[in-house]
Amino acid sequence: MDVLDAIRTRRSIRKYRPEPVPPAMVHALLQAVFASPSAMDARPWQFVVIDDTDLLRRLGAEMPHCEMLLSAPLGVLICADPAQERAPGFWPQDCAAAAQNLLLAAHHLGLGAVWIGLYPMDDRMEAVRRAVAVPPEMVPFALIAVGFPAEQLSPENRFDPRKLHHNRWGCPFTNEGKTE
Amino acid sequence: MDVLDAIRTRRSIRKYRPEPVPPAMVHALLQAVFASPSAMDARPWQFVVIDDTDLLRRLGAEMPHCEMLLSAPLGVLICADPAQERAPGFWPQDCAAAAQNLLLAAHHLGLGAVWIGLYPMDDRMEAVRRAVAVPPEMVPFALIAVGFPAEQLSPENRFDPRKLHHNRWGCPFTNEGKTE
Repeated sequence: MDVLDAIRTRRSIRKYRPEPVPPAMVHALLQAVFASPSAMDARPWQFVVIDDTDLLRRLGAEMPHCEMLLSAPLGVLICADPAQERAPGFWPQDCAAAAQNLLLAAHHLGLGAVWIGLYPMDDRMEAVRRAVAVPPEMVPFALIAVGFPAEQLSPENRFDPRKLHHNRWGCPFTNEGKTE
Repeated sequence: MDVLDAIRTRRSIRKYRPEPVPPAMVHALLQAVFASPSAMDARPWQFVVIDDTDLLRRLGAEMPHCEMLLSAPLGVLICADPAQERAPGFWPQDCAAAAQNLLLAAHHLGLGAVWIGLYPMDDRMEAVRRAVAVPPEMVPFALIAVGFPAEQLSPENRFDPRKLHHNRWGCPFTNEGKTE
């Protein structure tokens, strides 16, 4: 799948078939998260591969609005390691880039995934910290639920020209790219 | 270019040839940023297409470590619109996902790009706010410099098994994905 198609057609998938994600696919997902850019290339992150479905089910039952964890065969927990940061305050952006890479890689592989935000929600961060034994100096940032999709969602067009400006705020951007 | 290759081979490109980015490519980049996920689908962002090279040059001269703006024919400014947020505190992650989409789309199109972090650096945010007339309720988040590359960089392997855990922090993840 080419990059533009993957970006355009990716949707948040919250229902999964029960089969596990094959090891080669897990490896490809991990390669994608590690390849993310980070401010001053600090790579202020660590990752937890969660294929213990009992653990995922417990988290899905404990955290409100996380029903996707009740059917997910895999979760990838992205934790921030703020001590590794070189540019102060950038780690949430760095970890978010890693999350987006993972979502796109999953979609490319025919998997479905959804980004479950943890940081800065204290209750979710604490639930995950306890369940996975994340040490205090790390920040549970996001949990990406992954599996073979049990739902198909059509692409959504979120393009909104009202949110586009040209060189100066308020100047309309009219280039529709229809001609070279 | 397929997604995994794009993720794997993307590098930060800071030197550009002088030709402008064709309108169809600009449009593809904008489609990529708008297609990003955001917490509760709030889409708390606005974008400024900057092809006024005088403006880019001024910013490149004013902001330390932003020499890439001295040769870039295009900048895409990502601004956060925190008032649109539905899940409190998530807008930096949402805007970062948009930035990553843009970087990958640029690489796919044969363009080079680099993520210039603005938020949370007050001096850079103020410089950009003044130059582009960003209103006070918006946050200049990141400026992505884009152009046809005048440097070629080899892929970098950032995979680090020491930063991987399995189900519980500290348990090594040994699946190398080499077999199914």
